[in-house]
Amino acid sequence: MTQSSAIVVLNGPNLNLLGSREPGTYGNATLADAELSCRDVAERFGRTVEFFQSNHEGALIDRIHRARGDAAGLVLNAGGLSHTSISLRDAVLAVELPMVEVHLSNVHRREAFRHHSYLSSAATGVIVGLGIFGYRVAVEFLCRTLPPVAGADAPGSH
Amino acid sequence: MTQSSAIVVLNGPNLNLLGSREPGTYGNATLADAELSCRDVAERFGRTVEFFQSNHEGALIDRIHRARGDAAGLVLNAGGLSHTSISLRDAVLAVELPMVEVHLSNVHRREAFRHHSYLSSAATGVIVGLGIFGYRVAVEFLCRTLPPVAGADAPGSH
Amino acid sequence: MTQSSAIVVLNGPNLNLLGSREPGTYGNATLADAELSCRDVAERFGRTVEFFQSNHEGALIDRIHRARGDAAGLVLNAGGLSHTSISLRDAVLAVELPMVEVHLSNVHRREAFRHHSYLSSAATGVIVGLGIFGYRVAVEFLCRTLPPVAGADAPGSH
Amino acid sequence: MTQSSAIVVLNGPNLNLLGSREPGTYGNATLADAELSCRDVAERFGRTVEFFQSNHEGALIDRIHRARGDAAGLVLNAGGLSHTSISLRDAVLAVELPMVEVHLSNVHRREAFRHHSYLSSAATGVIVGLGIFGYRVAVEFLCRTLPPVAGADAPGSH
Amino acid sequence: MTQSSAIVVLNGPNLNLLGSREPGTYGNATLADAELSCRDVAERFGRTVEFFQSNHEGALIDRIHRARGDAAGLVLNAGGLSHTSISLRDAVLAVELPMVEVHLSNVHRREAFRHHSYLSSAATGVIVGLGIFGYRVAVEFLCRTLPPVAGADAPGSH
Amino acid sequence: MTQSSAIVVLNGPNLNLLGSREPGTYGNATLADAELSCRDVAERFGRTVEFFQSNHEGALIDRIHRARGDAAGLVLNAGGLSHTSISLRDAVLAVELPMVEVHLSNVHRREAFRHHSYLSSAATGVIVGLGIFGYRVAVEFLCRTLPPVAGADAPGSH
Amino acid sequence: MTQSSAIVVLNGPNLNLLGSREPGTYGNATLADAELSCRDVAERFGRTVEFFQSNHEGALIDRIHRARGDAAGLVLNAGGLSHTSISLRDAVLAVELPMVEVHLSNVHRREAFRHHSYLSSAATGVIVGLGIFGYRVAVEFLCRTLPPVAGADAPGSH
Amino acid sequence: MTQSSAIVVLNGPNLNLLGSREPGTYGNATLADAELSCRDVAERFGRTVEFFQSNHEGALIDRIHRARGDAAGLVLNAGGLSHTSISLRDAVLAVELPMVEVHLSNVHRREAFRHHSYLSSAATGVIVGLGIFGYRVAVEFLCRTLPPVAGADAPGSH
Amino acid sequence: MTQSSAIVVLNGPNLNLLGSREPGTYGNATLADAELSCRDVAERFGRTVEFFQSNHEGALIDRIHRARGDAAGLVLNAGGLSHTSISLRDAVLAVELPMVEVHLSNVHRREAFRHHSYLSSAATGVIVGLGIFGYRVAVEFLCRTLPPVAGADAPGSH
Amino acid sequence: MTQSSAIVVLNGPNLNLLGSREPGTYGNATLADAELSCRDVAERFGRTVEFFQSNHEGALIDRIHRARGDAAGLVLNAGGLSHTSISLRDAVLAVELPMVEVHLSNVHRREAFRHHSYLSSAATGVIVGLGIFGYRVAVEFLCRTLPPVAGADAPGSH
Amino acid sequence: MTQSSAIVVLNGPNLNLLGSREPGTYGNATLADAELSCRDVAERFGRTVEFFQSNHEGALIDRIHRARGDAAGLVLNAGGLSHTSISLRDAVLAVELPMVEVHLSNVHRREAFRHHSYLSSAATGVIVGLGIFGYRVAVEFLCRTLPPVAGADAPGSH
Amino acid sequence: MTQSSAIVVLNGPNLNLLGSREPGTYGNATLADAELSCRDVAERFGRTVEFFQSNHEGALIDRIHRARGDAAGLVLNAGGLSHTSISLRDAVLAVELPMVEVHLSNVHRREAFRHHSYLSSAATGVIVGLGIFGYRVAVEFLCRTLPPVAGADAPGSH
Repeated sequence: MTQSSAIVVLNGPNLNLLGSREPGTYGNATLADAELSCRDVAERFGRTVEFFQSNHEGALIDRIHRARGDAAGLVLNAGGLSHTSISLRDAVLAVELPMVEVHLSNVHRREAFRHHSYLSSAATGVIVGLGIFGYRVAVEFLCRTLPPVAGADAPGSH
Repeated sequence: MTQSSAIVVLNGPNLNLLGSREPGTYGNATLADAELSCRDVAERFGRTVEFFQSNHEGALIDRIHRARGDAAGLVLNAGGLSHTSISLRDAVLAVELPMVEVHLSNVHRREAFRHHSYLSSAATGVIVGLGIFGYRVAVEFLCRTLPPVAGADAPGSH
Repeated sequence: MTQSSAIVVLNGPNLNLLGSREPGTYGNATLADAELSCRDVAERFGRTVEFFQSNHEGALIDRIHRARGDAAGLVLNAGGLSHTSISLRDAVLAVELPMVEVHLSNVHRREAFRHHSYLSSAATGVIVGLGIFGYRVAVEFLCRTLPPVAGADAPGSH
Repeated sequence: MTQSSAIVVLNGPNLNLLGSREPGTYGNATLADAELSCRDVAERFGRTVEFFQSNHEGALIDRIHRARGDAAGLVLNAGGLSHTSISLRDAVLAVELPMVEVHLSNVHRREAFRHHSYLSSAATGVIVGLGIFGYRVAVEFLCRTLPPVAGADAPGSH
Repeated sequence: MTQSSAIVVLNGPNLNLLGSREPGTYGNATLADAELSCRDVAERFGRTVEFFQSNHEGALIDRIHRARGDAAGLVLNAGGLSHTSISLRDAVLAVELPMVEVHLSNVHRREAFRHHSYLSSAATGVIVGLGIFGYRVAVEFLCRTLPPVAGADAPGSH
Repeated sequence: MTQSSAIVVLNGPNLNLLGSREPGTYGNATLADAELSCRDVAERFGRTVEFFQSNHEGALIDRIHRARGDAAGLVLNAGGLSHTSISLRDAVLAVELPMVEVHLSNVHRREAFRHHSYLSSAATGVIVGLGIFGYRVAVEFLCRTLPPVAGADAPGSH
Repeated sequence: MTQSSAIVVLNGPNLNLLGSREPGTYGNATLADAELSCRDVAERFGRTVEFFQSNHEGALIDRIHRARGDAAGLVLNAGGLSHTSISLRDAVLAVELPMVEVHLSNVHRREAFRHHSYLSSAATGVIVGLGIFGYRVAVEFLCRTLPPVAGADAPGSH
Repeated sequence: MTQSSAIVVLNGPNLNLLGSREPGTYGNATLADAELSCRDVAERFGRTVEFFQSNHEGALIDRIHRARGDAAGLVLNAGGLSHTSISLRDAVLAVELPMVEVHLSNVHRREAFRHHSYLSSAATGVIVGLGIFGYRVAVEFLCRTLPPVAGADAPGSH
Repeated sequence: MTQSSAIVVLNGPNLNLLGSREPGTYGNATLADAELSCRDVAERFGRTVEFFQSNHEGALIDRIHRARGDAAGLVLNAGGLSHTSISLRDAVLAVELPMVEVHLSNVHRREAFRHHSYLSSAATGVIVGLGIFGYRVAVEFLCRTLPPVAGADAPGSH
Repeated sequence: MTQSSAIVVLNGPNLNLLGSREPGTYGNATLADAELSCRDVAERFGRTVEFFQSNHEGALIDRIHRARGDAAGLVLNAGGLSHTSISLRDAVLAVELPMVEVHLSNVHRREAFRHHSYLSSAATGVIVGLGIFGYRVAVEFLCRTLPPVAGADAPGSH
Repeated sequence: MTQSSAIVVLNGPNLNLLGSREPGTYGNATLADAELSCRDVAERFGRTVEFFQSNHEGALIDRIHRARGDAAGLVLNAGGLSHTSISLRDAVLAVELPMVEVHLSNVHRREAFRHHSYLSSAATGVIVGLGIFGYRVAVEFLCRTLPPVAGADAPGSH
Repeated sequence: MTQSSAIVVLNGPNLNLLGSREPGTYGNATLADAELSCRDVAERFGRTVEFFQSNHEGALIDRIHRARGDAAGLVLNAGGLSHTSISLRDAVLAVELPMVEVHLSNVHRREAFRHHSYLSSAATGVIVGLGIFGYRVAVEFLCRTLPPVAGADAPGSH
């Protein structure tokens, strides 16, 4: 299988409401804003970005499975499923792609049940509380640590 | 957005079996029976009632999201998801509608894992163990505490 | 012993202050307001209602014991004793009358020590967070599920 | 309702990857291999076997509900949902069919969160760590303990 | 202060109902039956017995305080207060009289919250599950271990 | 309601025995000694002191309720009830008067169940292990932080 | 099988040292002293007593198994095994004979690991802290509650 | 050392009573019945089976040690010792033979202390709740996964 | 060694910021204000006061060690170290001087990790939530309970 | 006080060894490498960066205090102190500067005691497992969210 | 009783396999090697050493009891029983001989259930992870701290 | 780097007081006494010993770091820091030298918070309760297991 150059950014339940839901906690930016910012950084490394959102755990798992064939890395903000879904964790481990976990708000300042994520120990890294800048950072980190895409110029060294 | 007059009554996994499943625990009445009773009380306040049932967490979240545009309040019996789904809780908080949680059986007399619900602290109130009468009470409570529907006569003050 | 037609509504410590204590949490209605509302619904079923309040656990237990002779059902808002009194629970079980537990505020949104009640598993049902409307609902539920009082007309079927 | 002769073998999230996912943990055999082996043993008892897999909790619940009409017993490997889904457990209890829980790997040698399954106390028996042989054993156990299918020859008594 | 010859047997909440409450758990004998049996054994040691029952924790504490002046030992069945009352425990320790704790039913076969008693580590001994025979044994034990009452014949050495 | 100048010092179960009970733990001073010392300091601020003791939780709650009309502040040594009574805590919060919690002995050197008090988070401050000097300090603290009593000379600024 | 008239008193590890081991905790009396006292009371009911002691869990289980054929009731002081042996508990349940658990010292005043016994919920009753008098009481209780031995005179009613 | 062809089936405390003890929980079959069924399947693979039962933990450990010289695999139903014996677990690990753990009843439906077994993470697999059929399955699994016995015909491939 | 007349008041990490840090929690008074107030009361008893502050645990321990030679008592507000430093506790115990623990804010109203202090059970008393008045009380308590300083006039008896 | 343009990056115990200590866990880059990378990004926003490392908790607290006067934001990798130091957390809160917590390795894949950090709920965001790239990201995040430095050109909007 | 000069070194379950079992964890030395080394050091102090091993808890307890008559001190490596046997602990306390606990491997690096030993608080000291050198050290420690054997030369003071 | 022949013995907070602090717990010997005894044994193996003590965690960490260049092994008695310092543990792991943990008193007989040490799983072995003899044993163990120092005669084989 040819190694894909794409990075898939998965968003779980309720993240479709980003920008309109509890702006005090989540800010005003939307997933579309985040996608633009991620694309910008990925292109500099010759990579593409796909955003995928679903409120269905099963649909997220299905998408992760397909990533074995069409992606080089994953960014995952599973929302409330982060703290409850072992199946999602198993899906990430099964596809053996590097994954960076992102949370928009600082979960450590919120309810105790948000302090543990089943995904964290399946992730390469975790970014918490940086808003949608977190997605961009996650994509940049994957671009920097994945093998370079053939034919892409390496961007400046930081 | 015009404020809807509807109250959406959501039922989670296995509640489609109501009336035929473990009648010793859940009784013989069906969701259709409950819907009739709720409609009757809502009409007195000039409101409508919609019942929605799904065994899929994602479908319930999708329906709650839509309630931002088409409902004035929610009644939620999430069944087994009550005790495990942070995503459902987040959906309720995101749409910022008053919600009353209902359990048909007295969960405090059952297994320890049914004693905690992620939904309760996102609810205005919780009604446990009153059978399908609980749905009717929840609807009546919302009708009494929501702003009156324009053009509807106020029912007796009890 | 002839079956009494009365429903006794018991209120525990600090509920005598209802209406003047922490109105942000408990509202402005008083126990007298609640009693009026309960009487109204009970009369429709040919039943009477007695309100009893004490700050003394022992007095509440004594009153529950007497209910074996003069009541058909109990509504119990034991306030802070709900979370600490096994003796009150034992009294309810000893008299073998149906009991509905009521909390005015949504205890699940408050301190963790209010999330467990020794009374809940001794109750038929539990109503939380509906304010004094909860008392009325509890009385109506008992009226609907107790055997009809001889000579009383059945109210409308819901 | 005529008693069905079928045994439904349900597989939950990520089990579609069997054979290609983490072979060190799960082995190289696929669900199709397992199905062949199960069919072989069921036929000896005059029974059929249906394999069903989904990454969606709701789809698994829907299938279990249908089993009330078309199956005599269930074999359930719910994968990661075993440890988190009360709704799946409720579905099994609701349909009142004998169920054997199967795990391919020895969950007791893995992360602590895999040591408890909500399904185990709803099951007749549990088989852990025998690989796909576990499915075959579960089917054989059901065939031996279910009432014989009319017209089928009893296999040897072993 | 002259050492009293009396043994005070204290009974806490709900024990006034003994004989009429949950006979499957507590048997048919009443406190009066128990008192007769205790008196019989105490007289053999030249001692008297007083039974005291109250549903009020404060009244029990008041009675224990008075025991400093009018009793030589205590038998205490505090019912539900056993598991919740540190004040009762403190009262026992304050009067510095030997105390034997009695429970009629086997609390270890009942709810988990009945497995711990604040009184046990303040007691000389604990007797559980022997019904009203437990009171008699407790009185006999105190009679045997307290200094002999002047002028009383020692009963047989058994 | 005119603001009262009185400070009510409440003492819970077993504290009537102070001076005669376990002097190794509680010392030889009596409540009367403590009252004298408190009065002395209160008078310097133009305030009065009332000591109230009861072994009945209900009587303590009743007294706290009355304090809304006749007191400016509370000092509370609830003895064993400190660790078990949510109702007492609720009474303190209901009357909205500043309260200082006092324990004569150092509870942190004693049994683990004495390390938590339901009253502490309802108190302004907590004084532990200073013997009856603790009451005096609590009264002085309240005198210094309550608004001055009209017509009273301010004592030295220390 | 003819119902035996014997009561077997089993003593577990280290109880052979009774009288010489830690007399501050266990007293000076020996198992032989206890046996004499038990025999005395049993004879009055026409019953015999056999004392059995072993430091081997397996030997205790073997003896309990034999009791199905040669005993009418069991008294069990399993020493340290009380807190750790599920096998001993299973043996008691398997032979379906009434059993009274005895501890010489008050285990509730000792290390926390002695506060739970696997045997207590398999026992009819539990006697703690009464020294070797506890054995005698246990035997008397069994004699009083077992069906009378044919040909034996009933002793006085208490 | 020549590799033995034998499979040793070890049974712990109280399993000698199988067939006569609590048949509601354990069924009517005896260990002898189980042994016959196991032998039947082992012979098909050219292997022998030895059943060993003891109520003594030490005897079980001694037998496991000997298995290094005379067995190719172990089946272990340690009864109550499963939940308490680290020594038994160490013995299994020390001899480095494949072991399958068997429980006749579904331990997950029983007391909480039966839900954890020290043996499970030392086992290859665990079979729970299938009655004595569990022994047969365990033997068959070992026969299928151990290297074939020289000179034995392989049974059918299922 | 001559007994020193000094009382050393130790302040731990971040207390150098007192008066400028989070005044809503800690007030506007500085350590210098507290020192003045303490000196005033100490002088009345013929004693001196030394304030010592450090953000270094080791420096606090060093100072406590020196107190064996130059102090008669300690007042200790260890800030965040109270909840985490066993070494500080050991230092206090090692020098065998009376110590009073002080917290400016009411720690029981703050995060759960501030509810336990390793120092409390090494202290004579604990004063919580009285602001800098707490230091003064602590000094006064030590002055009253330490042996009088030779040549100093005793101040008025309260 | 003029707002400083500096960002202080604090490193706690053992981080001086970065590059030479456990490279499998922490990588080969040194703090000096990290400093270069951070400076590069800060300069683009017209800001400076200062790296500070100490193995002494007190020295870290002292440095944080000084940051009130000379820094606009903090990046903090406290190493092992993250999980144990409440004092460090209090220092961060006291200076009221935005802080981003950084861990080089993915702490969620390591020992359980590294899964909780007292600093996280005092931080704006947390970056875990990205190696020294995490420092750079933290600096960039602060630069983007702090008010722009007067006279500095805003870098490109990425 | 004449004080014995012997030191008994007890080894529990599975330690008979030492040298052949899991050499990666336990090393290649045997109990016989350990015995030689211990004898050597004991002789220098005029003492003898006896090694005793059993896989039976009861046999170990019996041997400890005998040590009252024939030993001056104990060294105890109880293997897996260390973590589960209260009876063994009671035996050690009953014989009132100094005991040093030894573990060959570093139990703190192994499973959590090996981190607690019931024996440690009954021991004078504990030696962990030094292999069979631990036995020798334990014997030497006892020789140095026991009263000198009459007639033996004291070895060098090191 | 040439391998050093030195063994560094580190002592943490309060151990400078050894010999004068709580002699009932820690004995009368001083660190100087311990150093002499350790030197004696080290010299026999051609090694030197350096004792280092500090009350500052940071100073201990600094010293451990230097040990990479000047020591062959570590002995560490971190006092109270053993139970609280992850940073010290990390320092030991970072320098990759063998370390033996020593506690003078038997920590298992003391407060529960002394039963866990963060250092134990980073140590080769742990010696508890042998007083200053423990240091000597630790040094001897390191001397025996480190590669021999060139030019040193091997001492006798035990």
